[in-house]
Amino acid sequence: MSGKLWGVGLGPGDPELLTLKAHRLISGAGAVAYPARAGADSLARSIAAAWLKPGVHEIAMEVPMEPARGPAQAAYDMGAERIAATLEGGQDVVVLCEGDPMFYGSFMYLFARLADRFEVEIVPGVTSVNASAAALGLPLVARNEVLSILPGPMPKARLRARIRAADAVAIVKVGRHLAKIREVLDELQLTDHCTYIERTTQPAQYSVPLAEAPEVAPYFSMILMTKGNDPWLSNR
Amino acid sequence: MSGKLWGVGLGPGDPELLTLKAHRLISGAGAVAYPARAGADSLARSIAAAWLKPGVHEIAMEVPMEPARGPAQAAYDMGAERIAATLEGGQDVVVLCEGDPMFYGSFMYLFARLADRFEVEIVPGVTSVNASAAALGLPLVARNEVLSILPGPMPKARLRARIRAADAVAIVKVGRHLAKIREVLDELQLTDHCTYIERTTQPAQYSVPLAEAPEVAPYFSMILMTKGNDPWLSNR
Repeated sequence: MSGKLWGVGLGPGDPELLTLKAHRLISGAGAVAYPARAGADSLARSIAAAWLKPGVHEIAMEVPMEPARGPAQAAYDMGAERIAATLEGGQDVVVLCEGDPMFYGSFMYLFARLADRFEVEIVPGVTSVNASAAALGLPLVARNEVLSILPGPMPKARLRARIRAADAVAIVKVGRHLAKIREVLDELQLTDHCTYIERTTQPAQYSVPLAEAPEVAPYFSMILMTKGNDPWLSNR
Repeated sequence: MSGKLWGVGLGPGDPELLTLKAHRLISGAGAVAYPARAGADSLARSIAAAWLKPGVHEIAMEVPMEPARGPAQAAYDMGAERIAATLEGGQDVVVLCEGDPMFYGSFMYLFARLADRFEVEIVPGVTSVNASAAALGLPLVARNEVLSILPGPMPKARLRARIRAADAVAIVKVGRHLAKIREVLDELQLTDHCTYIERTTQPAQYSVPLAEAPEVAPYFSMILMTKGNDPWLSNR
């Protein structure tokens, strides 16, 4: 009988933001898989490291940063086959996923390749969006307010339209798109409603009002904007 | 010296989806506070119940369902004063929050009243949006896709415009607005891309394609819509 594939969300970085379920699964896992960038430590593995059993079977998938390209897809093909071989041997595989598996997660590419052949269970995780709002003490949305999650690489015109239409936005994957995003927010006169935060809940977490943000942002950076329409939340 | 106010996310319902940090704080809490609807059990309290210390001081705030009205605000005024009295006595208070505290959470109304008087720390939680995507095996957003969170009570025209502009939407607080929402999705010919789910990760969790949804939905119900634009996620 084949093993079961687990997609397990790890949350944004602080190992204490794992769920009890993720902790139970990772502590008991005989085999884990995770994405690793060439030449860099795996963030996913580092979040889970303290709870891995000694001698756990590790499947590290070397994938490029941008998952929607040929080379990344080939890496996921290869990773999926290695995971499949372990599952076919009767062993469960726990895939370690930064944040939440179904929310901009590379797990989705493994899921697309393996879900019709193996039993799969997904454990949701705390996203960096919610963790950033908590870290900043920033009420995100209340009552009938709309929250939009916008990826930084979006074209400028589309970004502008989506920001205008929302009450609150989280712009994720800011990285090298920071200058473009700041232009849009300046044009909309919303800069004063924005906070910049990078590496949420990780030891190097850093946040400032957007107007004071550095010129160079890492990939794991975010801008939160709230217009603060709710008269009952006067603190916002 | 005053105690510290903790806003602690509990996740969507399964007690195993608490974070390790939430578990630590709740297990050690001398005082907890939570919203309770008149005549109903508190969902927040029930999620945390197994880990509360015997004899913990409990502050139950009887609030109406809709927080943005006078009676609810008066209830939060009263709850905040009871919490403040405990904090002034030097004891920490852990506020139990369904889902995530800053994401449509009633904690925001306590935060607005107490954050300038007391030290506050917020612990983010897994949202019902991420938990529903996990339960359904539904990749939410990848690459440069936009996710919008839309409250069901929104006016119809606004709801239609926001759904059209997003790649994926989670419509929360569906409840008695189900018929209106279905009309909008039918008009946009998106019903076949939608799944209905209620009481995510709770014992009574129930989900069906939207076309087969019941006519009456509870407050804790959601519709997830993904257009599935990513050619690399062929399974979607």
